[in-house]
Amino acid sequence: MKRPTIHDVAAKAGVSRGTVSRVLNGDRYVSTASQLAVERAIAETGYVVNRNARSLVTQRSGSVLLVLSDPHERLFEDPNYSVLFRTAAQRLGERDISLVLMMVADDAERQRVMRYVQGGHADGVFLVSTHAGDPLASALGDQVPVVAQGEVLGLKIPYAATDERMGGRQMTEYLVSRGRKKIATITGPMDTAAGSQRLEGYTDVLGRRASKKLIAHGDWSRSSGHRAMTELLSRAPDLDAVFVASDLMAAGALAALREAGRRVPEDVAVGGFDDSSVALSTHPPLTTIRQPLADIAQETVRLLLALIDGAGSVEPVILPTELIVREST
Amino acid sequence: MKRPTIHDVAAKAGVSRGTVSRVLNGDRYVSTASQLAVERAIAETGYVVNRNARSLVTQRSGSVLLVLSDPHERLFEDPNYSVLFRTAAQRLGERDISLVLMMVADDAERQRVMRYVQGGHADGVFLVSTHAGDPLASALGDQVPVVAQGEVLGLKIPYAATDERMGGRQMTEYLVSRGRKKIATITGPMDTAAGSQRLEGYTDVLGRRASKKLIAHGDWSRSSGHRAMTELLSRAPDLDAVFVASDLMAAGALAALREAGRRVPEDVAVGGFDDSSVALSTHPPLTTIRQPLADIAQETVRLLLALIDGAGSVEPVILPTELIVREST
Repeated sequence: MKRPTIHDVAAKAGVSRGTVSRVLNGDRYVSTASQLAVERAIAETGYVVNRNARSLVTQRSGSVLLVLSDPHERLFEDPNYSVLFRTAAQRLGERDISLVLMMVADDAERQRVMRYVQGGHADGVFLVSTHAGDPLASALGDQVPVVAQGEVLGLKIPYAATDERMGGRQMTEYLVSRGRKKIATITGPMDTAAGSQRLEGYTDVLGRRASKKLIAHGDWSRSSGHRAMTELLSRAPDLDAVFVASDLMAAGALAALREAGRRVPEDVAVGGFDDSSVALSTHPPLTTIRQPLADIAQETVRLLLALIDGAGSVEPVILPTELIVREST
Repeated sequence: MKRPTIHDVAAKAGVSRGTVSRVLNGDRYVSTASQLAVERAIAETGYVVNRNARSLVTQRSGSVLLVLSDPHERLFEDPNYSVLFRTAAQRLGERDISLVLMMVADDAERQRVMRYVQGGHADGVFLVSTHAGDPLASALGDQVPVVAQGEVLGLKIPYAATDERMGGRQMTEYLVSRGRKKIATITGPMDTAAGSQRLEGYTDVLGRRASKKLIAHGDWSRSSGHRAMTELLSRAPDLDAVFVASDLMAAGALAALREAGRRVPEDVAVGGFDDSSVALSTHPPLTTIRQPLADIAQETVRLLLALIDGAGSVEPVILPTELIVREST
């Protein structure tokens, strides 16, 4: 039996050979009707696209991989990820590039991400929530362009981020200006830039008043904020303010304060970080530090596209934070 | 200059040629240390994996694509997706297959998913929240094995689902048994099996008492539940119960009832569907219909793997529901 050719597909679909070719090459200037007609004709004729030949020519998969390094639950708890994913998908979509998501929580998943990228399935990688010295991050960088949302400590990966340290300073200065005397903090993981640099901002302002017993660590999750707040209350029952390094952890901290019978802001002022949708849903609504997450996602995508398009190197982008005052302080 | 060979890689990594080959083939029985050594050696020697030759041999990408047909916000609002994604990733991981996620909310995104699959980047597709007659669903089926979580109306796609109609009947019968006289319902989208079949269960029980003014439609989002409840209260102010076809929409309905000054359950009994984490976080906690979502995800993956492994066809799997009584009724 004769193997079907591109001519057979064009005839069946009632379009020109050029249109079939444009569909096969993923050209965006093809109508949906033609696209579907060609796809149906391909299926009906049994035409086999020589995708290996095609990928040898274009060397492009047409997609970018977003790697989220976190327990799987987090994706569905933290509204920040929603903003990142949507913004990145939109910006890439304008270039007709797909965004696909993989999550890595353990070593086996790291190996699968590596194999996926080695298999040529992604033209670039967008890292989110990557921890210091992640072996995957550097290994990926040897394969395709890699960028990160937020600095990855210890690795020279191009990134866009907010000025974490400035944000930490802004919130701590504000709490001091409100007359608070004993200001505690709940940090993110210390092997992330956002975790360690927001803490640096806090200690910049408080100096020696930033004693160890006023510092507790969380992992960005709501429950870790609850746990850390309970710990702080037992260590320093007379604390009158707390700077929590994410809104989601602050929501957990508010619950812990409520359970301990402390009024917010009368007894304890609570400041968050992110200005995500969580900040508006807490009782009381959170005073927080706004980081321009959509802009950060856009800039991260811009860096990645520049690298994919052949730029030898790109500079990190750091965007300013802004204090947003609500009822929790 | 001589092009590096697999022997050069093995020598550089200090492993056998067989180990290099196992890494390249994604064999799971390779230690992480060897994996990383080989990857580094590949980068340092500049060895180019002939992935086209490889994929011609194996014809496998080693990954499965989960396609979520929904506005991007939904992924991060609905805890059901968290369970689906985690369970599917885990089950596929046991076979060393990656799960990648793409979301489709518009036609351009549909075309990109199609191109991704045509490009050979996925060995199978797992559809979630696909609406009736989605052109993408049938087009994908011509390319690779496709399964769905929940029946896709109008298409013969293998699926695993809960018994939607039985669940609708259970809740409605329960509300009747509690002495409620005027029972309204908020449905999901009518072009989804879960939307239309849960409503069928409701009308099975109420017959002619299921008048049009007691039926309002939502789109599964929390805000649509709020909107639909407000609509029902204005159409039928004397309603004394409502069966809401998802827990998330029920959370929205509870907020609308609170704003309208109705007490739950004294004035209006509220029943949900899913038994997701939302059902426990509402005030009061929701009486609901449990669907075994993790089991459904497992069964869906099992069907997909059977098809990928060459089964000619598979039968749909339908799992029973269970009534869970809490304080909202």
